[in-house]
Amino acid sequence: MLFHVRMDVKFPPGFDPEARAELIARERETAHEMQRAGSLVGLWRIVGEFANFSIFEVESGDELHRLLQSLPMFEFMMVKVTPLANHPSKL
Amino acid sequence: MLFHVRMDVKFPPGFDPEARAELIARERETAHEMQRAGSLVGLWRIVGEFANFSIFEVESGDELHRLLQSLPMFEFMMVKVTPLANHPSKL
Amino acid sequence: MLFHVRMDVKFPPGFDPEARAELIARERETAHEMQRAGSLVGLWRIVGEFANFSIFEVESGDELHRLLQSLPMFEFMMVKVTPLANHPSKL
Amino acid sequence: MLFHVRMDVKFPPGFDPEARAELIARERETAHEMQRAGSLVGLWRIVGEFANFSIFEVESGDELHRLLQSLPMFEFMMVKVTPLANHPSKL
Amino acid sequence: MLFHVRMDVKFPPGFDPEARAELIARERETAHEMQRAGSLVGLWRIVGEFANFSIFEVESGDELHRLLQSLPMFEFMMVKVTPLANHPSKL
Amino acid sequence: MLFHVRMDVKFPPGFDPEARAELIARERETAHEMQRAGSLVGLWRIVGEFANFSIFEVESGDELHRLLQSLPMFEFMMVKVTPLANHPSKL
Amino acid sequence: MLFHVRMDVKFPPGFDPEARAELIARERETAHEMQRAGSLVGLWRIVGEFANFSIFEVESGDELHRLLQSLPMFEFMMVKVTPLANHPSKL
Amino acid sequence: MLFHVRMDVKFPPGFDPEARAELIARERETAHEMQRAGSLVGLWRIVGEFANFSIFEVESGDELHRLLQSLPMFEFMMVKVTPLANHPSKL
Amino acid sequence: MLFHVRMDVKFPPGFDPEARAELIARERETAHEMQRAGSLVGLWRIVGEFANFSIFEVESGDELHRLLQSLPMFEFMMVKVTPLANHPSKL
Amino acid sequence: MLFHVRMDVKFPPGFDPEARAELIARERETAHEMQRAGSLVGLWRIVGEFANFSIFEVESGDELHRLLQSLPMFEFMMVKVTPLANHPSKL
Repeated sequence: MLFHVRMDVKFPPGFDPEARAELIARERETAHEMQRAGSLVGLWRIVGEFANFSIFEVESGDELHRLLQSLPMFEFMMVKVTPLANHPSKL
Repeated sequence: MLFHVRMDVKFPPGFDPEARAELIARERETAHEMQRAGSLVGLWRIVGEFANFSIFEVESGDELHRLLQSLPMFEFMMVKVTPLANHPSKL
Repeated sequence: MLFHVRMDVKFPPGFDPEARAELIARERETAHEMQRAGSLVGLWRIVGEFANFSIFEVESGDELHRLLQSLPMFEFMMVKVTPLANHPSKL
Repeated sequence: MLFHVRMDVKFPPGFDPEARAELIARERETAHEMQRAGSLVGLWRIVGEFANFSIFEVESGDELHRLLQSLPMFEFMMVKVTPLANHPSKL
Repeated sequence: MLFHVRMDVKFPPGFDPEARAELIARERETAHEMQRAGSLVGLWRIVGEFANFSIFEVESGDELHRLLQSLPMFEFMMVKVTPLANHPSKL
Repeated sequence: MLFHVRMDVKFPPGFDPEARAELIARERETAHEMQRAGSLVGLWRIVGEFANFSIFEVESGDELHRLLQSLPMFEFMMVKVTPLANHPSKL
Repeated sequence: MLFHVRMDVKFPPGFDPEARAELIARERETAHEMQRAGSLVGLWRIVGEFANFSIFEVESGDELHRLLQSLPMFEFMMVKVTPLANHPSKL
Repeated sequence: MLFHVRMDVKFPPGFDPEARAELIARERETAHEMQRAGSLVGLWRIVGEFANFSIFEVESGDELHRLLQSLPMFEFMMVKVTPLANHPSKL
Repeated sequence: MLFHVRMDVKFPPGFDPEARAELIARERETAHEMQRAGSLVGLWRIVGEFANFSIFEVESGDELHRLLQSLPMFEFMMVKVTPLANHPSKL
Repeated sequence: MLFHVRMDVKFPPGFDPEARAELIARERETAHEMQRAGSLVGLWRIVGEFANFSIFEVESGDELHRLLQSLPMFEFMMVKVTPLANHPSKL
């Protein structure tokens, strides 16, 4: 089923720039894998914010939680998940 | 999968008492059916409020939306759905 | 460019059921046209709510406002628009 | 009586990973004891968040406060307690 | 056990003054009974608002919900219940 | 006159446990004095939170501010004061 | 003692213009009396809003509640009272 | 001096379409006059909302309140005024 | 013109007590000067909070911003400015 | 197209004053360049706050995100972007 996810990233003040760059690189790699695996089917940056809207297609809440928790930047994120259904006006 | 649902009911001012009683009776019947069918697996009144917390076990977001929308009092409710996963500390 | 839109619908209490059904039918038709025209490129129901998340692809804020304002149910909606950018982790 | 509890965990930035792992292990043990003792009768992870919904069955507010305060991770939690009553539509 | 309750009253616009006066009189009578019965043990007006803070002493959430729901003005109230415990600094 | 006060305590992360214990002991002593002096006439713990509801009886806002500011834990508290009046339904 | 009060006025839709004008005239008269009596010692319009900030000097919360409740427009107001103390930097 | 103003318009449900059209026409005329007079120096529609952001240049808060109150749609608006200063990075 | 200002002070955890005392002394001196100069015409402590309500009389938003920014504790404050107008019921 | 942007700046406690001054100088230089390039077409300080309202004119959300992210103080800002359309009452 489909879920809408908003992720807001916040690093602690004074976070080491190298650790940060390395973390962002690993995050990107994980996001690529989730897209290739067909779990992460939509991904957009929110203009002006260190945040994104994503659409996930998964079997269950357990699978989604496992995926989100596996993100390298998970501990620096605030995550808000909204379950989706088919819209009757969708072609 | 499991979903946590909070429902808050609000009738418009001056709502006809008979229509109200009839609606509540039909709502109760529908809730009974959902419990017998195994979709509605937890249900509690919030003390002091015309509101409840429920746990639903369904196949998908589509099924949950269909169930919620079929509640006779749906149009008078504010509904907030939160997807659940197994908790690692659950026995 | 792309915009994320959340629409929440709220009819006034006692809204005539026929007017409502007719309005929803016209809304559906308009949503179909926007999808065929390539402006409305994503559309999902939010489970348990009379609400949706949409993705619009338009030339400008003026075009988006014109489209949203042309929705038959516009006057009964609360609309929240968020501008989007390409996400660097998008494949 | 029954209480609905939402717990949100937030460790301070730079929290020592070993202290964290040890704390989580002790928390799990305590949660197991509360379930075996029949005080903690419902427990779910909120998808995408370091948070849970729980149902507690206790004699009083004093007992519930003692239990919550005895959680090893209590000082890193934001806790919100809602008192419950039997729902008239519950089978 | 003890509960802290905040009640905010809001009558619909144009509410009939006689119905209002009669309702307030019945509400007062019910509040007197609850005080005599030892369930309502604290009651204060919030300055400038049609609202009060109350302390209830009851056996359970079920009893408290029954009491609150029996208030003649219950359908015009927003009620917020907070469970209490003994404070360690209380003499 | 009477005031309703909510106090929420929050120590900074990594606060020294001995300093904390000593502070809590002094806070308790001060609370005892205020109760003996007749200024602090109600005191309850909010279940699951490091917070309390209190009722103060004082001559003026100046006296209340002096009392609250004299609490040893004052700098770690968020305090919210609500002025009270006699409730017409109070026996 | 001194209290800071914010009042926001909201008439129901379709409120009769004559009733409104008459109410505003009576409100003004009452405000004048409170100023002459020395209870209402500060009064400002909030720019762009049907709202004001006021400073009241009264003996007690009971007196302030009586004054506020006596305002002809009281039932159309949302009132928020904040108790004040002398500021140590005040000359 | 300069003020930033956000205006949100909300007509009551069932508002007469002709009265609405006439009101909007008069509002437009008033906005034109304020622009010609040099008081209303910036005006933008918020995409998807019946709302605007405006910049006003006036002598005082009294003048701004008089202008806002003179808007034909004032009683259907929620208005939020923010005072502005020169920005040190402005060319 | 007149402005209503609310200032909330928050020092970082572990702020040096001497630096704090010196800062508060300088703040007081600056507040005295502003009162003598006729810019700061009202000043009250909010009971139970490290916060105040103030009334400023200044020529413009630029002057007010300059004054607020010159407060020694400015960088530890959250400031909220509301523009005021004459109230028609003011004597 | 046009966007309304609100930026709130917050430096971490104890931020080095020289680093701060250097950052503010570079921010100013970048703001000047954006104004000369015609992207930043409106800029005002919010009185009493370390915050501004800006108007940006750009080709797309991607361009706006690139500009905002290039601000030297971007990592210390909370940014809120609102898309704009022509207002029908604009001359």
